[in-house]
Amino acid sequence: MEMWYTEEHRKGVRWSLKVKESVYTAQSEFQRIDIFDTCDFGRVMTLDGLMMVNEKDEFIYHEMIVHVAMATNPAIKRVLVIGGGDGGTVRELVRYPAIEKIDMVEIDEMVVTAAREFLPYTSGGLEDERVTLHFKDGIEFVRGLKGAYDLILVDSTDPIGPGEGLFTHAFYTDCFEALGDQGILINQKESPFYEHTAREMKRSHEKIIRIFPVVKTYQYHMPSYPSGHWLFGFASKGLNPGEFDREAWEALGIATRYYNPEIHKGAFMLPTYVEEMLSE
Amino acid sequence: MEMWYTEEHRKGVRWSLKVKESVYTAQSEFQRIDIFDTCDFGRVMTLDGLMMVNEKDEFIYHEMIVHVAMATNPAIKRVLVIGGGDGGTVRELVRYPAIEKIDMVEIDEMVVTAAREFLPYTSGGLEDERVTLHFKDGIEFVRGLKGAYDLILVDSTDPIGPGEGLFTHAFYTDCFEALGDQGILINQKESPFYEHTAREMKRSHEKIIRIFPVVKTYQYHMPSYPSGHWLFGFASKGLNPGEFDREAWEALGIATRYYNPEIHKGAFMLPTYVEEMLSE
Repeated sequence: MEMWYTEEHRKGVRWSLKVKESVYTAQSEFQRIDIFDTCDFGRVMTLDGLMMVNEKDEFIYHEMIVHVAMATNPAIKRVLVIGGGDGGTVRELVRYPAIEKIDMVEIDEMVVTAAREFLPYTSGGLEDERVTLHFKDGIEFVRGLKGAYDLILVDSTDPIGPGEGLFTHAFYTDCFEALGDQGILINQKESPFYEHTAREMKRSHEKIIRIFPVVKTYQYHMPSYPSGHWLFGFASKGLNPGEFDREAWEALGIATRYYNPEIHKGAFMLPTYVEEMLSE
Repeated sequence: MEMWYTEEHRKGVRWSLKVKESVYTAQSEFQRIDIFDTCDFGRVMTLDGLMMVNEKDEFIYHEMIVHVAMATNPAIKRVLVIGGGDGGTVRELVRYPAIEKIDMVEIDEMVVTAAREFLPYTSGGLEDERVTLHFKDGIEFVRGLKGAYDLILVDSTDPIGPGEGLFTHAFYTDCFEALGDQGILINQKESPFYEHTAREMKRSHEKIIRIFPVVKTYQYHMPSYPSGHWLFGFASKGLNPGEFDREAWEALGIATRYYNPEIHKGAFMLPTYVEEMLSE
């Protein structure tokens, strides 16, 4: 018998991984959670059948969501992670000794419980003493906060299901208020390649540029996500990701497999069609 | 009835496109050629079942194989294209008025004949009067030439089947000899992500650095190729792709959808794991 996991990237585009063994399946209050071992991508976690994290390329996503902001402002002390239940984003954050406090707000406790048990490669950082877990709705958590964080990372699923409210104008405004003067917001900004994700990318971008004075977009190669061409948004109250102290970041001695100060610059250099979509 | 095209990216990784209609199937002396219409990628051509070109993302590959070299040296007059039977590379080249001569050497005449009939979106440039088609083995064509070209583009399939000889030390040496003093060689350099393509990337790189004084690697997002993360090699007798006249290229007024002078720079900024593989 052969078992295959198939994700429908479009109605007429499917991506399939050969499965060795199913490890965990559950239906939480919010979504279906599956963990299974694959031949080529190691251990995988899907939410509602969509690829969230796998052992082979999660380093790309997690390094790129964290290190661009941290290199731009190495003085960041207070961090809020919204989503990110697998723990990979926190794993990269705890590598910075200057960070004093990490609040992680994940709506679905079962995702974290499953990650702790079955995904040691991402969840290890959650045990760091600077980390506090809040099993709450990130939208409500951030509402009403004033200057409480230096960095907010929106490590969300697509804007369907539990992740939907993390793509709204009200949420981005609350994030702006929750950030201090040197604040940075990084958000999962979808992909420009297929129409449905490009639409969400544009909608997210249109909202953020009305709120933050500095708004940039950077790209990364994520083979396990549809099209492999994905984006993060960088928004701040003034800090520019192009002006960072390369030597200061290198002096931290953080070994990475994807991120480096060169790709930090190069990732902001986008294809013409993406630039055009963002300026429409 | 549903018809799906499936490419095996790895034994345990499959990528499938829903097919509207089969357009053309033939077995040439060298390979099996298939052309079909898909729901999401428009008209597709495969060789021996592997994705070569499709209407949706061919612009990325063809712009990136051509414009980086042409922006680096806008004085290029004599160009040799090896492979590239669909015509897309030539289509981008003929947009440069300074180019005087384009020799395209494609081993498989049936690929060109099929492209001319069924792939007007790539093959149109082949009718340009500066283009001469040679239905020959590129390896033999280039052997013994001295300083005959300013630019050689190796627009090849993977190093299996007809493309194999285009990844050898002898072939790269012949290319070096066939180039003038300002010569540039661009080659399809596979992908760093999966083990089998990464191995070919490294083998190709190891050979070229022993022959050319300037050797660089640049990346692009190619959703229809395995992993979506692909590379071209840039090798020259002295010209550095980082030193190019941005304004001169922009003054040509060549409208592009992926390439631009920013991504020209950014594409050379590679992930750490790729840099490490290349320097091993």
